[in-house]
Amino acid sequence: MLSAAARARLTVVLVGARNPGNIGAAARALHDFGFSDLRIVNDFAAPLEAAQLAAAATSAIAAAHILHSARRFDTLAPAIADCSLIVATTAIGERELTQPILPLQRASPKILEALAHSGETRVALLFGSEKTGLTNHHLSHAQLLTTIPLFAPSSASGEKPAAGEKAPRHLSLNLGQSVAICLYELTRSGLEGSAAIPILHPTPTTSEGRERLTQLLLEVLDTTRYTRRFPANSSEPQIRQLAHQLGATHREAETWMGILRQILWHNLTPPPPPNL
Amino acid sequence: MLSAAARARLTVVLVGARNPGNIGAAARALHDFGFSDLRIVNDFAAPLEAAQLAAAATSAIAAAHILHSARRFDTLAPAIADCSLIVATTAIGERELTQPILPLQRASPKILEALAHSGETRVALLFGSEKTGLTNHHLSHAQLLTTIPLFAPSSASGEKPAAGEKAPRHLSLNLGQSVAICLYELTRSGLEGSAAIPILHPTPTTSEGRERLTQLLLEVLDTTRYTRRFPANSSEPQIRQLAHQLGATHREAETWMGILRQILWHNLTPPPPPNL
Repeated sequence: MLSAAARARLTVVLVGARNPGNIGAAARALHDFGFSDLRIVNDFAAPLEAAQLAAAATSAIAAAHILHSARRFDTLAPAIADCSLIVATTAIGERELTQPILPLQRASPKILEALAHSGETRVALLFGSEKTGLTNHHLSHAQLLTTIPLFAPSSASGEKPAAGEKAPRHLSLNLGQSVAICLYELTRSGLEGSAAIPILHPTPTTSEGRERLTQLLLEVLDTTRYTRRFPANSSEPQIRQLAHQLGATHREAETWMGILRQILWHNLTPPPPPNL
Repeated sequence: MLSAAARARLTVVLVGARNPGNIGAAARALHDFGFSDLRIVNDFAAPLEAAQLAAAATSAIAAAHILHSARRFDTLAPAIADCSLIVATTAIGERELTQPILPLQRASPKILEALAHSGETRVALLFGSEKTGLTNHHLSHAQLLTTIPLFAPSSASGEKPAAGEKAPRHLSLNLGQSVAICLYELTRSGLEGSAAIPILHPTPTTSEGRERLTQLLLEVLDTTRYTRRFPANSSEPQIRQLAHQLGATHREAETWMGILRQILWHNLTPPPPPNL
């Protein structure tokens, strides 16, 4: 589980994002996964301002809070000046640089380690613009490159893009989706089975309860002459197996018993006279 | 690694999605993670058509292909009739139903197993509308509920929503982000080691078979006047959940249908005259 202090040390940096909807979606992802520091690198203020207005207009309070405290920078360097580990998200290929590039699920432990152990460290996670991603210039600021592993048809089915054709797949996920996936990956192991997930554990049926159900079901099958018509399906072990499906929980088992009793009761009650 | 055949067996169902941008983003996520079958449950065609037009206009060829072959249904039942395992995504809380709810990373192996081992099985992954999510009626069609584990401030920092205030966090991630995260989770680890385990899988019941059981059970409850005596237990979603316990396999489902038909038949047949 990431501590609050560790979460506070992660900074998400959107470089060149133009679509206010994507900026808003990124802010929502930060909020949902427990992060708060958003920075926008953009040579004009309009996209962030539009995202702030949209969040305010739609009462997206959580995102509005993050967008309100988001800071805008003209260029990347000052935006990450206080960060120690810079992680850049990128598509595979078309790079001239030599940093290691790891699939997200293998980069994640390194990011978590930096967040957890280095008291003074800020970690910056960079995302490029919708159209072009991060440039080589941006990537040169990073110590670690990571990519969301997408499905490459060529590796699985032998399909290949035609010669000279660029595979367009890395431009497909939108920015809000990419940010959400990265933050999900960073928190998924910490949140697994943690107290943050209140799983309802209903009371299970006891063996005694299951046996009562079995006997009731047998009685119903006798009363309605199922056992007589389908003896091959009606051995007690077979019926027990069927009855065991009725109600994994105590509450469900009680409901099934009520249903079976009602069937019996209805069958044992003399029908009303025909003239009623 | 999910095989192409396994990927082809996953169906993503968007129920009540209204925003064409979200439908488009969901289609992009399907494409990026190697899936293709998208179904839209909506009582009007406009959102899907708008998403198709937008994809065509922006040359989002990959998404356009998936949107073009997406099928629209008026209601949920026919959209999932050919699917055996129905997985519904939902926020935690506010549920009346009793299916297990697992965080996404623990639901994922179950989904992968169903995709990998059951030759005839389709798996449907349901997403609700942006505003309301899936209703209890929708959830009652599912065998498994899953939730993307989000950060709960109350558990980490002591912050709590004010009394009477509903925590809005589950409405925060947008639909495109939710679909992308779920498909990322399904593909991130592939099928680690699980292909080595040859489990015998009897033919599972399809959603259509379960729906026939549901309708039969409802008829039995009406005929025996259970619904009249216990209306609080007799809503259609509640009965559907009970019926879903009847027969995980096709053969068991057939046996239960025989039992229910026999109960009906016995109740509809006039009793023998008293002197017999």
